[in-house]
Amino acid sequence: MVSQLYFEDIETPSRTVGPSAVVDKDEMIAFARVWDPLPIHVDEEVGKAVFGSLTAPGLFILALKQRLLHQLQEFPAVIASLGYDEVRFHKPVRPGDTLTLIIDWSEKRLSKSRDDRGVVVQRLSLINQDSEEVMSHIDTILVRLRHGAN
Amino acid sequence: MVSQLYFEDIETPSRTVGPSAVVDKDEMIAFARVWDPLPIHVDEEVGKAVFGSLTAPGLFILALKQRLLHQLQEFPAVIASLGYDEVRFHKPVRPGDTLTLIIDWSEKRLSKSRDDRGVVVQRLSLINQDSEEVMSHIDTILVRLRHGAN
Repeated sequence: MVSQLYFEDIETPSRTVGPSAVVDKDEMIAFARVWDPLPIHVDEEVGKAVFGSLTAPGLFILALKQRLLHQLQEFPAVIASLGYDEVRFHKPVRPGDTLTLIIDWSEKRLSKSRDDRGVVVQRLSLINQDSEEVMSHIDTILVRLRHGAN
Repeated sequence: MVSQLYFEDIETPSRTVGPSAVVDKDEMIAFARVWDPLPIHVDEEVGKAVFGSLTAPGLFILALKQRLLHQLQEFPAVIASLGYDEVRFHKPVRPGDTLTLIIDWSEKRLSKSRDDRGVVVQRLSLINQDSEEVMSHIDTILVRLRHGAN
């Protein structure tokens, strides 16, 4: 049962260690064929020659991150995302890698224009089985207040 | 037949108007169910109540952008993406919207460490059928030189 994490519930700074997932090769290749069919993502021979194996599209890494967010026990009461900043793909992601979601709740502030919401800045990252950060970005979201007027 | 766009071929500043795509409702919902199953993306009733219709996940908008990049007649000879900056979702994207890819080639510079590549900064955006920008981000990529030493 997922519970809603309201603006008041979010402590800054704090860290949440989220769930993990193994990168499934078939799912990764199927995704890449539809959305980002670069040879390094879909052709085993090319992948081996360039990076030693197939590597995941950046978009697929972001998709895995999004799926892991939905597996949190507490999901923020998001109204909207204001955008991503500093999206970085630090290391190649390969089939079979185990990726763990880390959320660093950086800062929060009440909205100036609406009293039912606040702005929350998170740093989202994925680390692999060797504790290497493979992707990170800043996510700025609008989150509902538990006790906000409507 | 897609041709490779090498570092030398890229003029800055310049603009490329890319291909368009219609947002397919079934594809959008199927994608959202797998990667970002928020009610506003997958539940018609909730979508109507909140935004007047279902709206696309940000991730799906980025995926459409990536697919449109692959439909360009000339595709940059990308070695790697250094990351995205200032990813913004300016307007909701709805099923049936027609989105057109715009590439603004902002700047380029030769790599300092490797003489076979250069860094290219692009601003990628999608505009809808009403000429409204719905998404934009900065993309910094490493591009191969046509005449680079190896």
